[in-house]
Amino acid sequence: MSEFDADTRVEPAGDGVYDATVTDRWNALGGGANGGYLLTLCVQALARELAPPDPLAISAFFLRPGEPGPAQLRTEIARSGRRVATGEARLIQQEREIVRAVASFSDLAAADGPTDVRNAPPDLPPPEECLDLTAGGSLPGVTITDRFDYRLPQLPGWVQGAPTGEPHSEFWIRFKDGRAADTIALPGIVDAAAPVLLELGHASITVELTVHVRGRPAPGWLACRVFTRHLIDGFHEEDFEIWDGAGRLVVQSRQLGLVPGA
Amino acid sequence: MSEFDADTRVEPAGDGVYDATVTDRWNALGGGANGGYLLTLCVQALARELAPPDPLAISAFFLRPGEPGPAQLRTEIARSGRRVATGEARLIQQEREIVRAVASFSDLAAADGPTDVRNAPPDLPPPEECLDLTAGGSLPGVTITDRFDYRLPQLPGWVQGAPTGEPHSEFWIRFKDGRAADTIALPGIVDAAAPVLLELGHASITVELTVHVRGRPAPGWLACRVFTRHLIDGFHEEDFEIWDGAGRLVVQSRQLGLVPGA
Repeated sequence: MSEFDADTRVEPAGDGVYDATVTDRWNALGGGANGGYLLTLCVQALARELAPPDPLAISAFFLRPGEPGPAQLRTEIARSGRRVATGEARLIQQEREIVRAVASFSDLAAADGPTDVRNAPPDLPPPEECLDLTAGGSLPGVTITDRFDYRLPQLPGWVQGAPTGEPHSEFWIRFKDGRAADTIALPGIVDAAAPVLLELGHASITVELTVHVRGRPAPGWLACRVFTRHLIDGFHEEDFEIWDGAGRLVVQSRQLGLVPGA
Repeated sequence: MSEFDADTRVEPAGDGVYDATVTDRWNALGGGANGGYLLTLCVQALARELAPPDPLAISAFFLRPGEPGPAQLRTEIARSGRRVATGEARLIQQEREIVRAVASFSDLAAADGPTDVRNAPPDLPPPEECLDLTAGGSLPGVTITDRFDYRLPQLPGWVQGAPTGEPHSEFWIRFKDGRAADTIALPGIVDAAAPVLLELGHASITVELTVHVRGRPAPGWLACRVFTRHLIDGFHEEDFEIWDGAGRLVVQSRQLGLVPGA
Protein backbone atom coordinates (compact mmCIF):
# COMPACT_ATOMS: atom_id res chain seq x y z
CA MET A 1 0.00 0.00 0.00
CA SER A 2 1.29 3.48 -0.85
CA GLU A 3 2.17 5.99 1.85
CA PHE A 4 -0.75 8.11 0.68
CA ASP A 5 -3.28 5.29 0.90
CA ALA A 6 -1.96 4.06 4.25
CA ASP A 7 -1.94 7.50 5.84
CA THR A 8 -5.34 8.65 4.54
CA ARG A 9 -7.22 5.44 5.34
CA VAL A 10 -10.62 5.89 6.97
CA GLU A 11 -12.43 3.13 8.88
CA PRO A 12 -16.24 3.09 8.95
CA ALA A 13 -17.63 3.49 12.47
CA GLY A 14 -21.31 3.59 11.47
CA ASP A 15 -23.83 6.35 10.77
CA GLY A 16 -21.57 8.08 8.27
CA VAL A 17 -18.76 8.40 10.82
CA TYR A 18 -15.19 7.29 10.03
CA ASP A 19 -12.14 6.87 12.25
CA ALA A 20 -8.74 7.93 10.97
CA THR A 21 -5.26 8.72 12.21
CA VAL A 22 -3.51 11.97 11.40
CA THR A 23 0.09 10.84 11.05
CA ASP A 24 3.15 13.05 11.56
CA ARG A 25 4.40 12.16 8.08
CA TRP A 26 2.66 15.05 6.24
CA ASN A 27 3.68 17.98 8.42
CA ALA A 28 3.87 21.37 6.75
CA LEU A 29 6.26 24.28 7.09
CA GLY A 30 5.65 25.78 10.49
CA GLY A 31 4.64 22.44 12.03
CA GLY A 32 1.29 20.72 12.27
CA ALA A 33 -0.45 18.59 9.69
CA ASN A 34 -0.62 19.94 6.14
CA GLY A 35 -4.04 21.31 5.26
CA GLY A 36 -4.23 19.34 2.03
CA TYR A 37 -3.56 16.16 3.98
CA LEU A 38 -6.39 16.93 6.42
CA LEU A 39 -8.66 17.76 3.49
CA THR A 40 -7.81 14.41 1.91
CA LEU A 41 -9.15 12.61 4.99
CA CYS A 42 -12.46 14.44 4.40
CA VAL A 43 -12.36 13.44 0.71
CA GLN A 44 -11.67 9.80 1.57
CA ALA A 45 -14.66 9.67 3.93
CA LEU A 46 -16.95 11.35 1.38
CA ALA A 47 -15.73 8.96 -1.33
CA ARG A 48 -17.21 6.15 0.78
CA GLU A 49 -20.55 7.95 1.12
CA LEU A 50 -21.11 9.35 -2.38
CA ALA A 51 -21.64 7.12 -5.42
CA PRO A 52 -19.78 9.01 -8.20
CA PRO A 53 -16.05 8.25 -8.29
CA ASP A 54 -14.44 11.67 -8.71
CA PRO A 55 -14.34 14.68 -6.41
CA LEU A 56 -15.40 17.60 -8.62
CA ALA A 57 -15.72 20.68 -6.41
CA ILE A 58 -14.53 20.86 -2.81
CA SER A 59 -14.50 23.76 -0.41
CA ALA A 60 -12.73 23.42 2.92
CA PHE A 61 -12.68 25.86 5.82
CA PHE A 62 -9.72 25.44 8.16
CA LEU A 63 -10.99 26.19 11.63
CA ARG A 64 -8.12 25.05 13.84
CA PRO A 65 -4.66 23.52 13.32
CA GLY A 66 -4.69 19.73 12.99
CA GLU A 67 -2.18 17.68 14.93
CA PRO A 68 -0.92 14.10 14.63
CA GLY A 69 -3.25 11.73 16.50
CA PRO A 70 -6.68 10.17 16.20
CA ALA A 71 -9.38 11.92 14.21
CA GLN A 72 -13.00 11.36 13.35
CA LEU A 73 -14.75 12.24 10.09
CA ARG A 74 -18.46 12.98 10.44
CA THR A 75 -20.19 12.94 7.09
CA GLU A 76 -23.66 13.85 5.91
CA ILE A 77 -25.16 13.65 2.42
CA ALA A 78 -26.73 16.87 1.11
CA ARG A 79 -28.03 15.53 -2.19
CA SER A 80 -27.45 12.48 -4.36
CA GLY A 81 -28.30 13.60 -7.89
CA ARG A 82 -27.96 11.72 -11.13
CA ARG A 83 -24.82 13.49 -12.32
CA VAL A 84 -23.62 15.17 -9.14
CA ALA A 85 -23.72 14.07 -5.49
CA THR A 86 -22.88 16.47 -2.67
CA GLY A 87 -21.95 15.85 0.94
CA GLU A 88 -20.21 17.37 3.92
CA ALA A 89 -17.42 16.08 6.13
CA ARG A 90 -16.21 17.50 9.41
CA LEU A 91 -12.81 16.49 10.70
CA ILE A 92 -12.91 16.33 14.49
CA GLN A 93 -9.99 15.92 16.89
CA GLN A 94 -10.59 15.77 20.65
CA GLU A 95 -14.17 16.97 20.11
CA ARG A 96 -12.97 20.12 18.33
CA GLU A 97 -13.80 20.73 14.69
CA ILE A 98 -10.60 21.17 12.67
CA VAL A 99 -11.83 21.25 9.06
CA ARG A 100 -15.28 21.59 7.52
CA ALA A 101 -15.47 20.46 3.91
CA VAL A 102 -18.37 20.36 1.47
CA ALA A 103 -17.81 18.45 -1.77
CA SER A 104 -19.62 17.51 -4.95
CA PHE A 105 -18.58 14.28 -6.66
CA SER A 106 -19.23 13.33 -10.29
CA ASP A 107 -17.98 10.86 -12.89
CA LEU A 108 -15.43 12.79 -14.93
CA ALA A 109 -15.06 9.91 -17.41
CA ALA A 110 -18.74 10.30 -18.29
CA ALA A 111 -18.46 14.05 -19.01
CA ASP A 112 -18.78 14.60 -22.74
CA GLY A 113 -19.54 18.27 -23.21
CA PRO A 114 -17.55 20.79 -25.27
CA THR A 115 -13.88 21.64 -24.63
CA ASP A 116 -12.21 25.05 -25.21
CA VAL A 117 -9.05 25.82 -23.24
CA ARG A 118 -7.47 29.31 -23.28
CA ASN A 119 -4.39 28.58 -21.24
CA ALA A 120 -1.27 26.44 -21.59
CA PRO A 121 0.68 24.12 -19.29
CA PRO A 122 3.75 25.53 -17.51
CA ASP A 123 6.71 25.78 -19.90
CA LEU A 124 9.10 23.69 -17.80
CA PRO A 125 12.28 21.86 -18.77
CA PRO A 126 11.89 18.07 -18.33
CA PRO A 127 12.06 16.94 -14.68
CA GLU A 128 15.47 15.31 -15.20
CA GLU A 129 16.89 18.72 -16.21
CA CYS A 130 15.43 20.43 -13.13
CA LEU A 131 16.76 20.81 -9.58
CA ASP A 132 15.57 18.61 -6.73
CA LEU A 133 14.11 20.83 -3.97
CA THR A 134 15.31 18.46 -1.26
CA ALA A 135 18.61 17.34 -2.83
CA GLY A 136 20.39 18.95 0.12
CA GLY A 137 18.16 17.06 2.56
CA SER A 138 14.51 17.47 3.41
CA LEU A 139 13.45 20.57 5.32
CA PRO A 140 13.68 19.76 9.06
CA GLY A 141 10.27 18.81 10.46
CA VAL A 142 8.56 19.43 7.12
CA THR A 143 7.84 15.73 6.67
CA ILE A 144 5.55 16.34 3.67
CA THR A 145 8.75 16.96 1.68
CA ASP A 146 9.63 13.29 2.31
CA ARG A 147 6.38 12.21 0.65
CA PHE A 148 6.71 14.15 -2.61
CA ASP A 149 9.42 14.73 -5.21
CA TYR A 150 9.69 18.36 -6.31
CA ARG A 151 11.67 19.41 -9.39
CA LEU A 152 12.22 23.08 -10.26
CA PRO A 153 14.12 25.06 -12.91
CA GLN A 154 15.70 27.03 -10.05
CA LEU A 155 15.44 26.80 -6.28
CA PRO A 156 12.90 29.13 -4.63
CA GLY A 157 14.39 32.38 -3.38
CA TRP A 158 12.92 31.99 0.08
CA VAL A 159 14.65 28.61 0.57
CA GLN A 160 17.96 30.39 0.05
CA GLY A 161 17.03 33.24 2.38
CA ALA A 162 16.48 35.65 -0.52
CA PRO A 163 12.81 35.93 -1.55
CA THR A 164 12.57 36.74 -5.25
CA GLY A 165 9.81 39.33 -4.88
CA GLU A 166 7.82 37.38 -7.49
CA PRO A 167 4.91 35.41 -5.99
CA HIS A 168 4.84 32.97 -8.91
CA SER A 169 6.28 29.48 -9.19
CA GLU A 170 6.24 26.58 -11.65
CA PHE A 171 7.55 23.11 -10.85
CA TRP A 172 7.05 19.36 -11.18
CA ILE A 173 5.60 17.16 -8.45
CA ARG A 174 4.94 13.44 -7.90
CA PHE A 175 4.58 11.03 -5.00
CA LYS A 176 8.05 9.87 -3.96
CA ASP A 177 6.93 6.25 -3.61
CA GLY A 178 5.61 6.10 -7.17
CA ARG A 179 1.88 6.15 -6.40
CA ALA A 180 -0.05 7.60 -9.35
CA ALA A 181 -1.93 10.81 -8.63
CA ASP A 182 -5.64 10.12 -9.13
CA THR A 183 -8.60 12.44 -8.57
CA ILE A 184 -8.72 11.45 -4.88
CA ALA A 185 -5.13 12.62 -4.42
CA LEU A 186 -5.31 15.87 -6.43
CA PRO A 187 -7.22 17.95 -3.82
CA GLY A 188 -4.36 17.42 -1.36
CA ILE A 189 -1.58 17.99 -3.88
CA VAL A 190 -2.71 21.57 -4.60
CA ASP A 191 -1.70 22.32 -1.00
CA ALA A 192 1.52 20.27 -0.97
CA ALA A 193 3.91 23.13 -1.74
CA ALA A 194 4.98 25.99 0.52
CA PRO A 195 2.97 29.23 0.08
CA VAL A 196 4.26 31.22 -2.88
CA LEU A 197 3.77 34.31 -0.71
CA LEU A 198 7.09 33.33 0.90
CA GLU A 199 8.66 34.95 -2.18
CA LEU A 200 7.35 38.26 -0.84
CA GLY A 201 8.77 37.40 2.58
CA HIS A 202 5.43 36.53 4.18
CA ALA A 203 4.04 33.34 5.68
CA SER A 204 0.38 32.38 5.19
CA ILE A 205 -2.41 30.76 7.16
CA THR A 206 -5.21 29.23 5.06
CA VAL A 207 -8.77 30.33 5.83
CA GLU A 208 -10.52 28.56 2.94
CA LEU A 209 -9.46 26.36 0.03
CA THR A 210 -11.61 25.59 -3.01
CA VAL A 211 -10.54 22.79 -5.36
CA HIS A 212 -12.05 22.07 -8.76
CA VAL A 213 -10.92 18.73 -10.17
CA ARG A 214 -11.02 19.01 -13.94
CA GLY A 215 -9.78 15.65 -15.19
CA ARG A 216 -8.24 12.29 -14.38
CA PRO A 217 -4.47 12.71 -14.58
CA ALA A 218 -2.18 10.58 -16.73
CA PRO A 219 0.43 8.70 -14.64
CA GLY A 220 3.77 10.41 -14.06
CA TRP A 221 5.02 13.86 -13.20
CA LEU A 222 2.53 16.69 -12.75
CA ALA A 223 3.33 20.26 -13.78
CA CYS A 224 2.26 22.91 -11.26
CA ARG A 225 1.73 26.67 -11.60
CA VAL A 226 1.08 28.69 -8.47
CA PHE A 227 0.69 32.43 -8.04
CA THR A 228 -0.69 35.18 -5.85
CA ARG A 229 -1.86 38.38 -7.52
CA HIS A 230 -3.71 40.23 -4.79
CA LEU A 231 -2.22 40.66 -1.32
CA ILE A 232 -4.48 43.24 0.32
CA ASP A 233 -4.10 44.20 3.99
CA GLY A 234 -2.63 40.76 4.70
CA PHE A 235 -5.37 38.76 2.98
CA HIS A 236 -4.37 37.06 -0.25
CA GLU A 237 -5.47 34.37 -2.66
CA GLU A 238 -3.19 31.60 -3.91
CA ASP A 239 -4.13 30.10 -7.28
CA PHE A 240 -2.84 26.65 -8.15
CA GLU A 241 -3.08 24.75 -11.44
CA ILE A 242 -1.88 21.22 -12.09
CA TRP A 243 -1.39 19.90 -15.62
CA ASP A 244 -0.64 16.26 -16.38
CA GLY A 245 2.04 14.89 -18.68
CA ALA A 246 -0.43 14.87 -21.57
CA GLY A 247 -0.76 18.65 -21.25
CA ARG A 248 -4.26 18.62 -19.77
CA LEU A 249 -5.43 20.75 -16.83
CA VAL A 250 -6.46 18.26 -14.14
CA VAL A 251 -7.11 20.49 -11.14
CA GLN A 252 -7.46 24.17 -10.35
CA SER A 253 -7.62 25.60 -6.85
CA ARG A 254 -7.73 28.87 -4.99
CA GLN A 255 -7.16 29.45 -1.33
CA LEU A 256 -7.75 32.56 0.74
CA GLY A 257 -5.00 33.06 3.29
CA LEU A 258 -3.89 35.64 5.75
CA VAL A 259 -0.43 36.74 6.80
CA PRO A 260 -0.04 35.62 10.43
CA GLY A 261 -0.02 38.48 12.92
CA ALA A 262 -1.22 40.95 10.30
CA MET B 1 -35.66 50.57 2.13
CA SER B 2 -33.76 49.52 -0.98
CA GLU B 3 -35.01 46.72 -3.24
CA PHE B 4 -32.00 44.66 -2.18
CA ASP B 5 -32.64 45.09 1.53
CA ALA B 6 -36.37 44.49 1.19
CA ASP B 7 -35.97 41.36 -0.92
CA THR B 8 -33.16 39.77 1.11
CA ARG B 9 -34.69 40.39 4.53
CA VAL B 10 -34.55 37.48 6.96
CA GLU B 11 -36.75 37.18 10.04
CA PRO B 12 -35.49 35.32 13.11
CA ALA B 13 -37.59 32.26 13.94
CA GLY B 14 -35.43 31.01 16.82
CA ASP B 15 -32.62 28.46 17.19
CA GLY B 16 -30.62 29.98 14.33
CA VAL B 17 -33.50 29.59 11.87
CA TYR B 18 -34.67 32.51 9.72
CA ASP B 19 -37.72 32.93 7.51
CA ALA B 20 -37.42 34.67 4.18
CA THR B 21 -39.27 35.12 0.91
CA VAL B 22 -37.67 34.41 -2.43
CA THR B 23 -39.23 37.11 -4.61
CA ASP B 24 -39.66 36.90 -8.40
CA ARG B 25 -37.76 40.15 -8.81
CA TRP B 26 -34.28 38.59 -9.15
CA ASN B 27 -34.95 35.93 -11.76
CA ALA B 28 -32.04 34.88 -13.95
CA LEU B 29 -31.75 34.01 -17.61
CA GLY B 30 -33.52 30.70 -18.08
CA GLY B 31 -36.00 31.38 -15.26
CA GLY B 32 -35.83 30.70 -11.56
CA ALA B 33 -34.19 32.75 -8.86
CA ASN B 34 -30.65 33.98 -9.51
CA GLY B 35 -28.05 31.96 -7.58
CA GLY B 36 -26.36 35.06 -6.21
CA TYR B 37 -29.71 36.22 -4.84
CA LEU B 38 -30.26 32.89 -3.07
CA LEU B 39 -26.71 33.03 -1.74
CA THR B 40 -27.40 36.51 -0.37
CA LEU B 41 -30.24 35.13 1.75
CA CYS B 42 -27.68 32.73 3.27
CA VAL B 43 -25.27 35.63 3.84
CA GLN B 44 -27.98 37.75 5.49
CA ALA B 45 -28.84 34.94 7.92
CA LEU B 46 -25.18 34.31 8.75
CA ALA B 47 -24.62 38.05 9.26
CA ARG B 48 -27.13 37.83 12.13
CA GLU B 49 -25.33 34.86 13.68
CA LEU B 50 -21.68 35.81 13.33
CA ALA B 51 -20.14 38.79 15.13
CA PRO B 52 -17.67 40.19 12.54
CA PRO B 53 -19.31 42.55 10.02
CA ASP B 54 -17.88 41.43 6.67
CA PRO B 55 -18.29 38.18 4.75
CA LEU B 56 -14.72 37.17 3.86
CA ALA B 57 -14.87 33.73 2.22
CA ILE B 58 -18.08 32.02 1.13
CA SER B 59 -18.59 28.76 -0.68
CA ALA B 60 -22.06 27.82 -1.91
CA PHE B 61 -23.20 24.55 -3.44
CA PHE B 62 -26.32 24.85 -5.59
CA LEU B 63 -28.27 21.65 -5.06
CA ARG B 64 -31.61 22.43 -6.69
CA PRO B 65 -33.17 25.40 -8.51
CA GLY B 66 -34.73 27.99 -6.20
CA GLU B 67 -38.18 29.33 -6.99
CA PRO B 68 -40.13 32.38 -5.82
CA GLY B 69 -41.94 31.62 -2.56
CA PRO B 70 -41.23 31.10 1.13
CA ALA B 71 -37.83 29.89 2.25
CA GLN B 72 -36.13 29.02 5.48
CA LEU B 73 -32.49 29.56 6.38
CA ARG B 74 -31.08 27.09 8.88
CA THR B 75 -27.79 28.29 10.33
CA GLU B 76 -25.17 26.75 12.56
CA ILE B 77 -21.95 28.23 13.90
CA ALA B 78 -18.78 26.24 13.21
CA ARG B 79 -16.34 28.45 15.09
CA SER B 80 -16.31 31.96 16.51
CA GLY B 81 -12.65 32.96 16.53
CA ARG B 82 -11.07 36.25 17.46
CA ARG B 83 -10.40 37.40 13.89
CA VAL B 84 -12.56 35.02 11.88
CA ALA B 85 -15.96 33.46 12.60
CA THR B 86 -17.35 30.65 10.45
CA GLY B 87 -20.86 29.32 10.03
CA GLU B 88 -23.10 27.39 7.70
CA ALA B 89 -26.51 28.24 6.23
CA ARG B 90 -28.86 25.94 4.37
CA LEU B 91 -31.59 27.46 2.26
CA ILE B 92 -34.66 25.23 2.40
CA GLN B 93 -37.82 25.46 0.29
CA GLN B 94 -40.66 22.99 0.81
CA GLU B 95 -38.37 20.82 2.96
CA ARG B 96 -35.86 20.48 0.12
CA GLU B 97 -32.35 21.88 0.44
CA ILE B 98 -31.67 24.39 -2.35
CA VAL B 99 -28.32 25.92 -1.38
CA ARG B 100 -25.70 24.96 1.18
CA ALA B 101 -23.30 27.76 2.06
CA VAL B 102 -20.36 27.89 4.45
CA ALA B 103 -18.92 31.31 5.20
CA SER B 104 -16.20 32.95 7.24
CA PHE B 105 -16.76 36.52 8.37
CA SER B 106 -14.11 39.00 9.50
CA ASP B 107 -13.68 42.73 10.03
CA LEU B 108 -12.03 43.99 6.85
CA ALA B 109 -11.60 47.47 8.32
CA ALA B 110 -9.38 45.97 11.04
CA ALA B 111 -7.08 44.18 8.56
CA ASP B 112 -3.73 45.94 8.53
CA GLY B 113 -1.29 43.52 6.92
CA PRO B 114 0.86 44.16 3.82
CA THR B 115 -0.55 45.01 0.38
CA ASP B 116 0.98 44.03 -3.00
CA VAL B 117 -1.37 43.88 -6.01
CA ARG B 118 -0.20 42.46 -9.37
CA ASN B 119 -3.29 43.21 -11.41
CA ALA B 120 -5.16 46.29 -12.60
CA PRO B 121 -8.83 47.31 -12.78
CA PRO B 122 -10.65 46.84 -16.10
CA ASP B 123 -9.68 49.56 -18.58
CA LEU B 124 -13.22 50.79 -19.24
CA PRO B 125 -14.48 54.08 -20.66
CA PRO B 126 -16.52 56.03 -18.08
CA PRO B 127 -20.04 54.60 -17.56
CA GLU B 128 -21.64 57.61 -19.30
CA GLU B 129 -19.69 56.78 -22.48
CA CYS B 130 -20.80 53.10 -22.38
CA LEU B 131 -23.90 51.37 -23.71
CA ASP B 132 -26.83 50.46 -21.45
CA LEU B 133 -27.43 46.69 -21.66
CA THR B 134 -31.18 47.12 -21.23
CA ALA B 135 -31.66 50.39 -23.15
CA GLY B 136 -33.84 48.46 -25.57
CA GLY B 137 -35.91 47.09 -22.68
CA SER B 138 -35.09 44.53 -20.03
CA LEU B 139 -34.72 40.91 -21.07
CA PRO B 140 -38.18 39.29 -20.82
CA GLY B 141 -38.52 37.39 -17.55
CA VAL B 142 -34.96 38.17 -16.52
CA THR B 143 -36.11 40.42 -13.71
CA ILE B 144 -32.63 40.74 -12.21
CA THR B 145 -31.88 43.10 -15.13
CA ASP B 146 -34.49 45.46 -13.61
CA ARG B 147 -32.53 45.55 -10.34
CA PHE B 148 -29.10 46.47 -11.76
CA ASP B 149 -27.73 48.99 -14.23
CA TYR B 150 -25.20 47.49 -16.63
CA ARG B 151 -22.92 49.66 -18.81
CA LEU B 152 -20.65 48.13 -21.45
CA PRO B 153 -18.24 49.42 -24.13
CA GLN B 154 -20.13 47.21 -26.60
CA LEU B 155 -23.15 44.95 -26.30
CA PRO B 156 -22.44 41.25 -25.69
CA GLY B 157 -22.38 39.17 -28.86
CA TRP B 158 -24.81 36.59 -27.50
CA VAL B 159 -27.45 39.28 -26.84
CA GLN B 160 -27.36 40.08 -30.55
CA GLY B 161 -27.49 36.41 -31.54
CA ALA B 162 -23.82 36.39 -32.55
CA PRO B 163 -21.56 35.05 -29.77
CA THR B 164 -18.12 36.65 -30.03
CA GLY B 165 -16.18 33.45 -29.41
CA GLU B 166 -14.33 35.28 -26.61
CA PRO B 167 -15.45 34.21 -23.12
CA HIS B 168 -14.28 37.48 -21.56
CA SER B 169 -16.27 40.55 -20.58
CA GLU B 170 -15.70 43.85 -18.79
CA PHE B 171 -18.49 46.20 -17.74
CA TRP B 172 -19.87 48.54 -15.07
CA ILE B 173 -22.60 47.57 -12.63
CA ARG B 174 -24.60 49.26 -9.85
CA PHE B 175 -27.95 48.85 -8.13
CA LYS B 176 -30.60 50.64 -10.20
CA ASP B 177 -32.23 52.17 -7.12
CA GLY B 178 -29.00 53.77 -5.94
CA ARG B 179 -28.24 51.48 -3.01
CA ALA B 180 -24.50 51.40 -2.33
CA ALA B 181 -22.85 48.02 -2.77
CA ASP B 182 -21.45 46.95 0.60
CA THR B 183 -19.72 43.71 1.55
CA ILE B 184 -23.10 42.06 2.21
CA ALA B 185 -24.17 42.76 -1.37
CA LEU B 186 -20.94 41.85 -3.17
CA PRO B 187 -21.32 38.03 -2.94
CA GLY B 188 -24.54 38.26 -4.91
CA ILE B 189 -23.26 40.79 -7.45
CA VAL B 190 -20.55 38.41 -8.70
CA ASP B 191 -23.40 36.25 -10.00
CA ALA B 192 -25.59 39.08 -11.32
CA ALA B 193 -24.44 38.90 -14.94
CA ALA B 194 -25.22 36.26 -17.56
CA PRO B 195 -22.59 33.50 -17.89
CA VAL B 196 -19.71 34.67 -20.10
CA LEU B 197 -19.76 31.17 -21.60
CA LEU B 198 -22.71 32.42 -23.67
CA GLU B 199 -20.03 34.04 -25.87
CA LEU B 200 -19.04 30.49 -26.84
CA GLY B 201 -22.68 29.65 -27.48
CA HIS B 202 -23.19 27.61 -24.32
CA ALA B 203 -25.43 28.05 -21.29
CA SER B 204 -24.20 27.17 -17.80
CA ILE B 205 -25.55 25.64 -14.59
CA THR B 206 -23.63 26.52 -11.42
CA VAL B 207 -22.42 23.64 -9.26
CA GLU B 208 -20.35 25.63 -6.78
CA LEU B 209 -19.49 29.30 -6.24
CA THR B 210 -16.67 30.59 -4.05
CA VAL B 211 -16.54 34.28 -3.18
CA HIS B 212 -13.65 36.06 -1.51
CA VAL B 213 -14.55 39.57 -0.39
CA ARG B 214 -11.36 41.62 -0.43
CA GLY B 215 -12.45 45.09 0.62
CA ARG B 216 -15.28 47.48 1.42
CA PRO B 217 -16.26 49.18 -1.83
CA ALA B 218 -16.41 52.92 -2.34
CA PRO B 219 -19.92 54.12 -3.32
CA GLY B 220 -20.76 54.32 -7.02
CA TRP B 221 -20.20 52.24 -10.12
CA LEU B 222 -18.29 48.96 -9.85
CA ALA B 223 -16.02 47.72 -12.64
CA CYS B 224 -16.37 44.01 -13.41
CA ARG B 225 -14.07 41.59 -15.24
CA VAL B 226 -15.37 38.10 -15.98
CA PHE B 227 -13.74 35.28 -17.93
CA THR B 228 -13.66 31.54 -18.51
CA ARG B 229 -10.35 29.98 -19.50
CA HIS B 230 -10.97 26.26 -19.17
CA LEU B 231 -14.05 24.62 -20.66
CA ILE B 232 -13.29 20.89 -20.42
CA ASP B 233 -15.89 18.25 -21.34
CA GLY B 234 -18.67 20.70 -20.44
CA PHE B 235 -17.28 21.69 -17.03
CA HIS B 236 -15.88 25.20 -16.78
CA GLU B 237 -14.87 27.82 -14.26
CA GLU B 238 -16.04 31.42 -14.38
CA ASP B 239 -13.76 33.94 -12.69
CA PHE B 240 -15.20 37.28 -11.64
CA GLU B 241 -13.43 40.35 -10.26
CA ILE B 242 -15.04 43.56 -9.07
CA TRP B 243 -13.04 46.75 -8.63
CA ASP B 244 -14.48 49.87 -7.00
CA GLY B 245 -14.28 53.43 -8.30
CA ALA B 246 -11.11 53.99 -6.28
CA GLY B 247 -9.41 51.25 -8.30
CA ARG B 248 -9.32 48.66 -5.52
CA LEU B 249 -10.23 44.98 -5.91
CA VAL B 250 -13.20 44.44 -3.60
CA VAL B 251 -14.28 40.90 -4.46
CA GLN B 252 -13.00 37.92 -6.42
CA SER B 253 -15.03 34.83 -7.18
CA ARG B 254 -14.88 31.59 -9.11
CA GLN B 255 -17.73 29.29 -9.95
CA LEU B 256 -17.66 25.79 -11.37
CA GLY B 257 -20.43 25.28 -13.90
CA LEU B 258 -21.53 22.69 -16.38
CA VAL B 259 -23.08 23.04 -19.79
CA PRO B 260 -26.65 21.75 -19.48
CA GLY B 261 -27.25 18.47 -21.23
CA ALA B 262 -23.51 17.89 -21.76
